[in-house]
Parts: sequence; C-alpha cells; structure tokens
Amino acid sequence: MKIKKKDFSKWYNKVVRLLVDDRYGIKGNVVLNQFGTFILNKIYEELKKLLEEDGHKQVTFPILIPEKNFEKEKEHVKGFFPEVYWVTEAGKKKLEEKLALRPTSESAFYPMYSIWINGRSDLPLKLFQFGPIFRYETKATKPLIRGREFYWIESHDAFASEEEAKEQVKKDMEIIKSLFEKYGIPFIYFKRPEWDKFAGAVESYAADTFLPDGKRLQVVTTHFLGQNFSKAYNIRFKDSDGKLKYVYQTCFGPGIYRIIASIISIHGDEYGLVLPFEISPIQVVVIPIKIDKKKIEKKFKKLNLRILIDDSEDSAGEKFYKWEMYGVPIRVEIGEKEIKGNYYTLFRRDERKRIKIKDLNEIKKIGKEIDENLRKKAKKYFDSMIVEIKNEKELKKLKKIGRANICEKCARKVEKYGFDVFGDSGERKNGKCIFCGKETNRIYYFGKSY
Amino acid sequence: MKIKKKDFSKWYNKVVRLLVDDRYGIKGNVVLNQFGTFILNKIYEELKKLLEEDGHKQVTFPILIPEKNFEKEKEHVKGFFPEVYWVTEAGKKKLEEKLALRPTSESAFYPMYSIWINGRSDLPLKLFQFGPIFRYETKATKPLIRGREFYWIESHDAFASEEEAKEQVKKDMEIIKSLFEKYGIPFIYFKRPEWDKFAGAVESYAADTFLPDGKRLQVVTTHFLGQNFSKAYNIRFKDSDGKLKYVYQTCFGPGIYRIIASIISIHGDEYGLVLPFEISPIQVVVIPIKIDKKKIEKKFKKLNLRILIDDSEDSAGEKFYKWEMYGVPIRVEIGEKEIKGNYYTLFRRDERKRIKIKDLNEIKKIGKEIDENLRKKAKKYFDSMIVEIKNEKELKKLKKIGRANICEKCARKVEKYGFDVFGDSGERKNGKCIFCGKETNRIYYFGKSY
Repeated sequence: MKIKKKDFSKWYNKVVRLLVDDRYGIKGNVVLNQFGTFILNKIYEELKKLLEEDGHKQVTFPILIPEKNFEKEKEHVKGFFPEVYWVTEAGKKKLEEKLALRPTSESAFYPMYSIWINGRSDLPLKLFQFGPIFRYETKATKPLIRGREFYWIESHDAFASEEEAKEQVKKDMEIIKSLFEKYGIPFIYFKRPEWDKFAGAVESYAADTFLPDGKRLQVVTTHFLGQNFSKAYNIRFKDSDGKLKYVYQTCFGPGIYRIIASIISIHGDEYGLVLPFEISPIQVVVIPIKIDKKKIEKKFKKLNLRILIDDSEDSAGEKFYKWEMYGVPIRVEIGEKEIKGNYYTLFRRDERKRIKIKDLNEIKKIGKEIDENLRKKAKKYFDSMIVEIKNEKELKKLKKIGRANICEKCARKVEKYGFDVFGDSGERKNGKCIFCGKETNRIYYFGKSY
Repeated sequence: MKIKKKDFSKWYNKVVRLLVDDRYGIKGNVVLNQFGTFILNKIYEELKKLLEEDGHKQVTFPILIPEKNFEKEKEHVKGFFPEVYWVTEAGKKKLEEKLALRPTSESAFYPMYSIWINGRSDLPLKLFQFGPIFRYETKATKPLIRGREFYWIESHDAFASEEEAKEQVKKDMEIIKSLFEKYGIPFIYFKRPEWDKFAGAVESYAADTFLPDGKRLQVVTTHFLGQNFSKAYNIRFKDSDGKLKYVYQTCFGPGIYRIIASIISIHGDEYGLVLPFEISPIQVVVIPIKIDKKKIEKKFKKLNLRILIDDSEDSAGEKFYKWEMYGVPIRVEIGEKEIKGNYYTLFRRDERKRIKIKDLNEIKKIGKEIDENLRKKAKKYFDSMIVEIKNEKELKKLKKIGRANICEKCARKVEKYGFDVFGDSGERKNGKCIFCGKETNRIYYFGKSY
C-alpha cells in the first residue's frame, strides 16, 4: 500500500492524527495530544534559544486587540480584516468596543512601542512572544497546515536605521536556517513578489518547503516594514541630532504548526511518522521480551535520553507496530537471547533495519546518524520535487514545483496555468525567458500552493 | 515614606509596573514585560515539572469553545455564563454558532474525554495545559490580581474510582505546597464552604494567602468533581465487570498571575520588588566601578547564574537604585579597591546590607540564605495577619484576617459584618462559638477578599 505516494492528502490526514485530534467540534481547530504538544514545545524552546542569542527578549501581550488599534495601518487592515474574529458580547452584554482575536500582533505591539520608544537608548528594541493566533480561514482547513487557531512565535523589532533593520531580516533567515537544518527540513527562502507581500510590509521574505503532493507550503515569513507602521503608530525616537525620527521595523513569524506539518510530511513513510531523534517525544522505546523491566531499567535511565520501556500487556508485535507508527527513531528489543549474548538488538526507524550493538552508549551516536540520514533523504526528495521547465507546453503539464528562466515582466504569466510565483530566491543563471524568449538571468520557482 | 504600610494598593500599583504595563488599552488586560514574562515562564516550568512527576501529560486545547459544549453542566453554566466573552462575528460575517473564549476548560476537555475514555486501560487520564483564560470581570480590576485575560495551568484528571480522585486532590495540594515553599509564599489550604464552591464541583479546596492590606487572595483551587461532569458529558468506561461506569474527576487550577502577585505583595518593601533568588530574572547584578567589564566577565560567567553586568552609562548610584527597585537579590560592586584587596562587596537585597566575600562561589550559598530568610520573614508576616477573635465586638473592628471558634451553623454570620468565610482548614480546637456560645471544636478563618 503506497498511500503516501498515491494519495498524500489521505495519508497526511491519517498520520497527523497521531499528534492531533480533529474531532474537537470547530472547523479547523485541533487538540494537540501529549506527543503533538511535546513537539510544539520543543520547537518553541529551540526558537526561543535562537532568538535570545540574537538579543531578543520574550514578552506576553494580550490576545484581545481593541478595534481602534487595528485600523491604523491601512494596507494591514485590508489584508487582515476579512479573517478577523470579533468578540462583541460578554455575559449577556454587548461590548462598547469590539475586540479582535489577534490574527497577528502588529496592532497590539506597536501602540506600546510608541510609548516605550523615546530615545536612542531604547533602540534596538527586539521582542518576541509565543502563543496562539486566530484567522477565520474560508479555504478548506487541514490539521497543522491551515487552521483557524494556531501557535507561532512572532518577533517585532525596531531600529534607528534602515541598515540595521535590513540586517535583522538576514539574521531572521539565519535563525530559520539553523532550525530547519536541525529537523532536516529542506527549504528555499524567497523574496515574495510585490503582489504577494505581507499587508503593510515593504519587503516580504518566506521560507517555503514543498510537500509530496507537489504543493508549496509557506512555513515562515520575515518582513522588512520600513517606516510604514512606525508612521501609522507614531513610533519615534529622539536621535543624537535632537530630531524626532520614525523607527525602522521588522517582524518575523515562524509558524510552529507548519514546521510540525513539514516534519510529518517530508520524513514520514508508509508506516507512519518518522521523527528526527532530536525532536521525538520518545527517542528510544525499549521492548522487554519475556524479561522483567526492572532488570534493565537502570541502564537505560543512565543514558539521559527520552526513553519509554513498554511493558504493557500488548504483544511484542503490537508494540513494534505501534511505536513504528509513532515514528520513534530507535527501538530496542531485549530478551534472554540478548542478555545471554551480552548485546542489544536495535531497530532503526529511518532505514527500517535491525542492527546489533554491544554498548548502549552507541545509541546517541546512532541518533545523530539517523538525523543526518533523514536530512540527506529529505534533500534528495526536495531536489526531486523541482522540475526544470523549458517551455509553456511543459509548464502546462507541471505536477510538481517548476523552475525556469523567466524575465521579470513575464513572471505572472504562470498564473494563467493556475500556478503561483514563489518569488526571487536570489539565484541567477543566463537563459531565455520561457514566455517571451528574451535573454534573462532571472530564475523563478512556481507551482500550486497551500 | 512607608507607602507599603500606609497604602498597600497604591504601593502595589506602582511596583507591579516593574513587571507589567497596564497602558494596553483594555480594562484589566496587561502586557508582561521581559521580567514579568520570565517569572511567568519560571513558575510554569516548575509547575510543569511537578505535574509531570505526578504522571500528568501536557496537551494543547483550542481557546475557542463552541456554545453547545458549554451548556451541558447546569451549575457550571450558571457560574460562568455571566463572565464569558463571546465571539459572534468573523470578517463581516455573523457566525452560525457563537464561540466562547474559555473562562476555564471543562467544556473543552470533557467532550474529548468522552471520546478518549473507553476502557479501564484509558484510566487514570491526567492531562494539563498552560495558557490564557478570559473572564469578563465586572469588579474593579487590578494587574495580576484581577484581570480579564490571565495565564494559568489547569489539569483535568479522570479516574475509575472515587478514592483515586480524592487521593488526587491531596496530591494537587502537595504540588502547591512544594511550589509555594520554593517561593516563600505562606498560605492556608481551605475546604470551601458549600455556598462558595466551584460551579459544578462536589468539593472545592483553595490555597489562600493574605495580602498586606488585610485581604485574602485565592491563588489556587483544586476541585473534586465527583461524577457531575462525567454524567453531563457522558464520560464512561467499561469496567472489568463488563459494566459501563461514569468516571470520577478532579480539576486543578494554579493561577500563575496570582502567584506572581503574591510574591510581589508579600516580599516587596518600600524600595520596590524583593525577588527570591530562585525566581529572579537577574539573580546577580554586577556594577563595575571605574573598571573594565572585560576584566571580570569571565569569572561571573563561570558561576552559571543569571547575571547582568551593568556597564551602562548611568551613574553607580542610579544603577543601585534601579536594580534595588527591580528586586535583584544580590548586587556585586567591584572597583579598584575590591580588585586590589582581592574581595567582593555584595549587597543583599533582602536585608539591605553590604557584606564582603573572598570567593565568588559563595554567592550560591548566599542565594539560598536569602530565600530562606524571605520564607521566614513571610511566615512571620503571615502569622501577624491573623487575629484571634473572641466576640462580635472584636469582629466588628477586624482589619486583618480573623480566626475564631465558630460552630458550623453560625459560620455565615460573619457575612453580616462584610466578611467572607474562607472555609475549613482542618484545624480543630475546643472552645465556644463567638456567636451562639455553644461548645465547638471548629475553627473558621474569615475576612475581606479580593
């Protein structure tokens, strides 16, 4: 049964249920179970560490935003209003002012920035928060990919100069590179085209990955906001020349749900989840076969890894099946045979093969090998998703992600075929535009999108 | 200026601003700054550890709850409906079903429990989550004490037997005891009287502390729900005798904002915050006096504590004042004198006194001493808040927390004087009821409440 290959969407909907429950009763809202929550926390903590190393501080803003805050940046409003949930009543009372459930937090942060930022010594101001955001999606929802309530981190930075702000965009990219590398998620960072920018931004950048059904998934975005918001929210500082100046801003929003969705989709196989050793809630599952748990417990505890010794009443076969489905990277089988022979039988989830080891401490090394292997496989998969397109005839038949020389003028022509332009990845190569035939060094990626 | 003593409310409103900003624009909603957020996270992580050690798993439920979920447990509805925020619109559309912002999550968790719990092997089910909850408070709001959006942990446990559930209530109390001990917050655990139970509970227990203005602050509650909710939400399991039985439930809600408020209120002094070493975002602030930061940096880093070396342009005096206000437990002053003399000058925030040490490693020991000292001072303070009441005349004049022999029948009579009955702390001592004069061994605590 090659479900993943044949019908990715069906496969995904089944496998994602190992981490979330979509029977909650609101379209697009899911419950993350203990495994899903573990992974959410793990990614949050890693991002937090990276942001703090880059000088960010964590803060906690309310989820509710007054309507009046929301209306200040015109482009921003236009972009988000159709998706905003509104609280209009409390108890049996109608509220005097409607309150928005934050769809993103510019309009919560920036009025405070206008209070907090006064002089040069208040800059740069680099803050982030973690929590749920709310968007009333009208498109078809899909657990962790498109929901109406989801978790992310968002950072909001303010600088005295344009250069510093633009530098921050690069730092944000570095953070994502380091995070995605850790989980073996291949991606391309695109500068979004003008017509596909974040509402209110001067420049938008996005880390996109490609899912096995040939669609692009936007996972993270970083935006250079210029002075658009500082002018709308009156965020000024007194510069050393005594003049009041508007700050330059950036914001950055790693969507943690979509990072989890990428890990599921890219590493998973026909047997279920395949989780990197780094992130798996259970790194090693130990199945004692007709021996007492107490005999081996101590040795495994010493490893200081996330270990589950499964001595439940299920059969060994059932346990093998279950934990393979949950993507546990390493399974250890121990029976009398192993104890007598003074070795351990390990099952590597990534390669689905059994190996023998003498020393339990080898497990950590094998964990690293597994993650390295997943990274390599994912890269190979990712490259295989990209198809070189030479002409419109090929474009018409495109089922994956297309890559082609297209001149800037012709870029949007791919939309005629139902594809989106992902933007500029920075790649340059001389060739002829597949539409107009003119010489161009511009390379575009395009395809269907989530 | 003895503001804390003279006007606690004024003192609190000033000092709390070091951790939160109440200029956000919605009554009762605050922004936690980097220090407030640090403390929030620290308490969350400590509670998480304690709950996990007790076999709980963390999950993540949506914040939105469909109206129909909410209406199942009648007492529960009555208790919470007046405070529920309702989402009724999205974009420009009216929603078909109103969605509640969770004021507590029984009605989110329990419909899923009815799906998840089927057999004995699904029990006990012990889950918790961390996040914001929303209550449209009509009383006067106060930062971290009474707000409309605040953070807590809530755990929801289901058991096969009544005994196990009642045992869990005791375990929850142990968790709170261990947490409050850590932060030096004195408290009494009360079994709430019948008329003051959580809406839908069979028994309610609460950890109350007393603030310097003589008012009781309810910080944490634990509830034995019996089968009230399992019957309302149809949560049943097939027992070993083949019969379908309703589970017994408990829930537990440590209000993290109020834990922070207790730390501020009880330990703080006229100079500002006094934070326990355990929880302070900055454990040690180092003020280099006319020497280069680089000279000392390495030594302090080695300590592996939360250290700030403040080499900003402010004067030493300004720095002393600032970090004392922020409650940093230990300040180290280092100038040429110290370097030559091969010693360090330390300022202990708790005692406001300077000491000299030879070896930097002593700092950790001193940190522990500080926390022990704060604990002792707080206990002494707490005891001083409790007044033995002998008769109604004394009751009438009560400005703090009263304690008296009162028989069960007369308990509510304290309400005539504008006081609340906090409940049964389990204390027993023979005496005469201050109202009816009859012999009773029941002791009640009472007073004003937040």
